[in-house]
Amino acid sequence: MLSKIEEYLQKERGRHLEELKEFVGIPSISSSTAHRPDMKRAAEWLAAAMRKAGLEHVEVMQTDGHPVVYGDWLHAPGKPTALVYGHYDVQPPDPVDQWETPPFEPVIRDNKLYGRGATDDKAQLYVHVKTAEAFLQAGGGLPVNLKFCIEGEEEIGSPHLQPFLEAHREKMRADLIAISDGPMHSEDQPSICCGLRGMCALELTVRGAKTDLHSGLYGGGVANPATALVQLLSTMHDREGRVTVAGFYDKVHELPDAEKESLGRLTFDEDRLSRELGVPGLFGEKGYSFLERTSVRPTLEINGIYGGYQGEDIKTIIPSSATAKISCRLVDDQDPEEIMRRIQEHIAAHRPEGVTVEIKPMHGGKPYVISPGHPYIRAAESAYREGFGKPPVFIRSGGSIPIVQVFSGLLDAPVIMMDLGLPDENLHAPNEHFHLENFDRGVRTLCRFWQEISRQGFRQNRMCGDNGLPS
Amino acid sequence: MLSKIEEYLQKERGRHLEELKEFVGIPSISSSTAHRPDMKRAAEWLAAAMRKAGLEHVEVMQTDGHPVVYGDWLHAPGKPTALVYGHYDVQPPDPVDQWETPPFEPVIRDNKLYGRGATDDKAQLYVHVKTAEAFLQAGGGLPVNLKFCIEGEEEIGSPHLQPFLEAHREKMRADLIAISDGPMHSEDQPSICCGLRGMCALELTVRGAKTDLHSGLYGGGVANPATALVQLLSTMHDREGRVTVAGFYDKVHELPDAEKESLGRLTFDEDRLSRELGVPGLFGEKGYSFLERTSVRPTLEINGIYGGYQGEDIKTIIPSSATAKISCRLVDDQDPEEIMRRIQEHIAAHRPEGVTVEIKPMHGGKPYVISPGHPYIRAAESAYREGFGKPPVFIRSGGSIPIVQVFSGLLDAPVIMMDLGLPDENLHAPNEHFHLENFDRGVRTLCRFWQEISRQGFRQNRMCGDNGLPS
Repeated sequence: MLSKIEEYLQKERGRHLEELKEFVGIPSISSSTAHRPDMKRAAEWLAAAMRKAGLEHVEVMQTDGHPVVYGDWLHAPGKPTALVYGHYDVQPPDPVDQWETPPFEPVIRDNKLYGRGATDDKAQLYVHVKTAEAFLQAGGGLPVNLKFCIEGEEEIGSPHLQPFLEAHREKMRADLIAISDGPMHSEDQPSICCGLRGMCALELTVRGAKTDLHSGLYGGGVANPATALVQLLSTMHDREGRVTVAGFYDKVHELPDAEKESLGRLTFDEDRLSRELGVPGLFGEKGYSFLERTSVRPTLEINGIYGGYQGEDIKTIIPSSATAKISCRLVDDQDPEEIMRRIQEHIAAHRPEGVTVEIKPMHGGKPYVISPGHPYIRAAESAYREGFGKPPVFIRSGGSIPIVQVFSGLLDAPVIMMDLGLPDENLHAPNEHFHLENFDRGVRTLCRFWQEISRQGFRQNRMCGDNGLPS
Repeated sequence: MLSKIEEYLQKERGRHLEELKEFVGIPSISSSTAHRPDMKRAAEWLAAAMRKAGLEHVEVMQTDGHPVVYGDWLHAPGKPTALVYGHYDVQPPDPVDQWETPPFEPVIRDNKLYGRGATDDKAQLYVHVKTAEAFLQAGGGLPVNLKFCIEGEEEIGSPHLQPFLEAHREKMRADLIAISDGPMHSEDQPSICCGLRGMCALELTVRGAKTDLHSGLYGGGVANPATALVQLLSTMHDREGRVTVAGFYDKVHELPDAEKESLGRLTFDEDRLSRELGVPGLFGEKGYSFLERTSVRPTLEINGIYGGYQGEDIKTIIPSSATAKISCRLVDDQDPEEIMRRIQEHIAAHRPEGVTVEIKPMHGGKPYVISPGHPYIRAAESAYREGFGKPPVFIRSGGSIPIVQVFSGLLDAPVIMMDLGLPDENLHAPNEHFHLENFDRGVRTLCRFWQEISRQGFRQNRMCGDNGLPS
């Protein structure tokens, strides 16, 4: 049966990519109120694509924020039910002037599709839609029951997904959740992600006088909010990259020896990465490799800092305020709320004189880990081996998909991360793109994944209570 | 004679203020290339106003930057020649949304003129033009020889004034330089400024990767330029507001006891100032009063800081760079070039790992001090006493007019600062304004100042070599 399906995919490839360009061309920036109409347009476009694929009950479902696009095909009685999660919203394109071609005018160069949202997450979720289409249009049906739940708020922390899932728990119920929203290890090495970092984000504002002040007349006489912010932020790391917020590492475990060895075996050229990134060298917490630091160790990063004059030349003022946007990546048992509390305590303990400090907690999400021995992970392993012609390695991703924990908690089902992106595809940065050979390998892998899940009937396994999550 | 002159000023007051509003309405922002045509317009407007006043040889003189407006009246043989310096350029109006009325649509409210550049320096220099006009139109001539040299680059550090003065040294030669470009002590207390802080400014940029990076995939693995900048800047002050750059205070002297006592006698309500500014308390170097910290002590201020994401919500990136704009206010024998070198050495000694650091030195200027016993200062004292009905106090200003040192050095003449502004007039900030009662007191004071200078014939005194400058 797979040959007919692959023939179909081959024949329709040109149309599929044209459609994908249309999708990437919609500036569905969830964080921008100005792009609300584009968000609606993207949701409706996706619903139409799902209907065209042959999915049923397709619906743009309202939430208190941006809508969720739902669709299903439930005609495989006795077989497991899988729910595909993805997101049609994208990051803002700034700095726009660093894009080689406009972020929302997608183009294909060197078999790569360029455009904001190309890899994060439009092309990756689109591979799922096209896999379903191939089974339904050319294969007579899917080997499993399939549901799609594609949201529009992932890039702003999915504020309405949890209430949505709670309200529609029965409709969304599944034996597993499949997500393709991240990168594989490298172009030559497919990987299965068995862990994600959690997140805890906040905005920290230091305020001084009501207005900017002349630095000649007031300089030396009042606290400078930019200096106070700088001093406060400087207490949060030591000079070797370790976070110095008290209690920050309390719930972080050392990596099990087997996983540490497996990570260590991955070929990884640190010098080459430095050159590619344009940095004088890699840097971070002493005693851990780059791969460890970016996947199994937590971080506290300044994502943005601003206050005072930013124009040409100099403006001799004392800024009235200065702000930092901060987000932490969390691992193991670090809890976003507890880390937020720790940071608040740290700030209280280091509060600078002569200014006021305002903390605005933002979205958070718990870390997630699944055992490489879980049966669905083994099915994915076999599917990747065939789809990519190479056995995948097991890694943990440094990124966060906070809703992974929400899904596994609310639906009591394991989340299988079927990443199809690559790490150098500039997600969240200018010139984001997606390698189109992974579009082809992706549909092949997913075809086999659904067949494997269907064939082995893991559904019963899950009923025994082993969902593969660590205690 | 003064009665006829004052009658003229009274009669023409309405017209004079209307003209001043026109002048303040021109957005002559020297730091902005977009406002180049407005700079030209402001210079031409001023030249026309000088001609109308009766000044001769009025000329818009080209430089390699914005032009200088010159005019003179040289028909007082045997009398001293004074050169009036001022600037027709203004600071950028940002943040524009904090202005109650648009910055370049001047209005008068409560006898105050609101608009960018009102007090810094358009109204103050305009008082000089109107004083000359009154003498020339109603008094039959000026009691001294008078030259005007009004530049358009003060707010960007006067990069072309020194070469201009060198090229036109003979034309600009004078026995004294008069400048009104600062604030008096307070509304009830006129003052004469006998010192200015110098300046040393730079832009400090920390660079990491070529583009912003995803903080999940790279976070922990590379240095964050914002964090590196923060750590570097945090080494420049201790927690009590003292600058910790090695050698920074080497050429700073303790204030002579007499001046310290005089400063201490000035009534100054620190709590009231805190409330007015909206800060929880004043703050600065331990062991010095607010007035000392803002006039006779040096500073290092962050005027602006920026890097990474500044929009709504959060964007989970590691910024590719982060920048701080820094300026120091210098006192006594601190030399801008030496301080720049000290800062560069400090940065080299604290250079963070994993990033590159770029220092862009910007404009500087030496501090300036003149003795309260100088004969021209005594003439100014007497003029203020009559113009304001109260004896002035001697202070030092915390601000910088780098060209003061240039003038006193190049023209070998003392600079007399005849400040007519007030400290709470929001210069360099939103809602800048000028108290119009000081327009009236200002012309009265200047009328008497020129008469006093003329009457006492200080010209000869200066020829004896005593120019009142400290050694």
